[in-house]
Amino acid sequence: MRICKKINEVREEIRKIKKENKMIGFVPTMGYLHKGHISLIRKAKIECDYTVVSIFVNPTQFGPNEDFERYPRDIERDIKILKNEKVDLLFNPDTQEMYKEDFKTWVYVDEYSDILEGKFRPGHFKGVCTVVLKLFNIIQPDKAYFGLKDAQQLIIVKKMVDDLNVPVEIVECETVREKDGLAVSSRNIYLSKEEREKSICLYKALKKMEDLIKNKKIYESKILIEEGKKIIEKEKNVELQYLEIVKISNLKRIEKVEKDVIILGAIKIGNVRLIDNIVISML
Amino acid sequence: MRICKKINEVREEIRKIKKENKMIGFVPTMGYLHKGHISLIRKAKIECDYTVVSIFVNPTQFGPNEDFERYPRDIERDIKILKNEKVDLLFNPDTQEMYKEDFKTWVYVDEYSDILEGKFRPGHFKGVCTVVLKLFNIIQPDKAYFGLKDAQQLIIVKKMVDDLNVPVEIVECETVREKDGLAVSSRNIYLSKEEREKSICLYKALKKMEDLIKNKKIYESKILIEEGKKIIEKEKNVELQYLEIVKISNLKRIEKVEKDVIILGAIKIGNVRLIDNIVISML
Repeated sequence: MRICKKINEVREEIRKIKKENKMIGFVPTMGYLHKGHISLIRKAKIECDYTVVSIFVNPTQFGPNEDFERYPRDIERDIKILKNEKVDLLFNPDTQEMYKEDFKTWVYVDEYSDILEGKFRPGHFKGVCTVVLKLFNIIQPDKAYFGLKDAQQLIIVKKMVDDLNVPVEIVECETVREKDGLAVSSRNIYLSKEEREKSICLYKALKKMEDLIKNKKIYESKILIEEGKKIIEKEKNVELQYLEIVKISNLKRIEKVEKDVIILGAIKIGNVRLIDNIVISML
Repeated sequence: MRICKKINEVREEIRKIKKENKMIGFVPTMGYLHKGHISLIRKAKIECDYTVVSIFVNPTQFGPNEDFERYPRDIERDIKILKNEKVDLLFNPDTQEMYKEDFKTWVYVDEYSDILEGKFRPGHFKGVCTVVLKLFNIIQPDKAYFGLKDAQQLIIVKKMVDDLNVPVEIVECETVREKDGLAVSSRNIYLSKEEREKSICLYKALKKMEDLIKNKKIYESKILIEEGKKIIEKEKNVELQYLEIVKISNLKRIEKVEKDVIILGAIKIGNVRLIDNIVISML
């Protein structure tokens, strides 16, 4: 596996690969790789001829009081995992390589970025869009792989790619879960044993809501959300940040479940924020 | 010359051209082509194997009280000119093709966009950056050609390309002028005979300032600007909007002329806004 820390090195490598007409698959990550990332990488490996993974903890998507400094990092372990998966290239730039001192250009998706996660993390999606577009311009992949666990991010990146005519196909991949249903996340490592037990309440709430829709034919968002909230509120020391039912195409709230919707939620346990979601496909 | 109105048609054509490893040159325009555009096209023709021109009067770079509706258009005449120049492809989309109803994504360069032209045309450069990036993503050129006449636009596009790692080389081209020095512009057609005569005062002011720097060794911005203003203020019914001396690298105002600076000005004659600039290279 080739490891590049500089943009110019990557460009040179990509130029060669492009000349060979190979299809390039790209998995952007912030490292501390887990089963979720590995599922993205394996999908890329199957669909493409050349697989690039980036590891970059992007400072511009963290708020001033967020966990940028303590975000888990273990590059040696990550490299072992990537080599094991036979990834072709790891792009692992440092902050100065990605953001020069006088960096001034930003990309954002209006409206989509100010709701749900965006309400609790102002500026987060502007940082995400900007870094994703930079990475796309550096790697120039044919396909890029994103997990549905960060559903709002996925929907916003797809919207950006569509609006800006970015020549990259966005491939969405299922959320990978632990045995009890907790969505895998690099941030799960923050959880104490007790917190880990409580953490499952968000997934339980989502599954309860899904059950009410699919089996009890309850379609009113207000009722569904109330039922979901009850499950989360039962847990002590768990703060519900949001639980909303929105259209998957534009993230707009709906009063009644129709067609394709997504239920998204975020909770805070101690200092740890966890998000999850469930897509409901109505036939 | 191939004429495409649809993004998908362009993509298909570009894919073929890329496979042949041809170098693609791109000249984005708003049409109503003049000597300035032609000089860009000829430079592209010399440097590249395949030349694409776009004609798109971009609504998002016009303010609500600006001249979007009455901006001069003559596509038949433009097509003749482009055929004559042996341009390979004209991309001439309509507004709906470029901006779908629910368009939400914007690109902007902070600080650079709020000064000079940006002060008088709020949102202008956000519209410019967004459409230029879209066009780059559609055409995927190796080189793109911009005139120095719109110097702030050129500097902002270069900054965007640099910050976002866009794989396009920006080529800057000298301002083309009428015999008396007026910078050629599609908007010059708005000028009455009397206004046309007055219009030269901006260029005269810029040349006076250049003369003071180069021959009189006067380097204080304040004095230079005062001298320039005098020339413009002599003309009746000409409103000076700004006249500033800034660093060419970051558009920041300087007190004393050192190294590479650019003097930029804008005037309004009746309803017509005209801009011009002059680059001063200090050895």
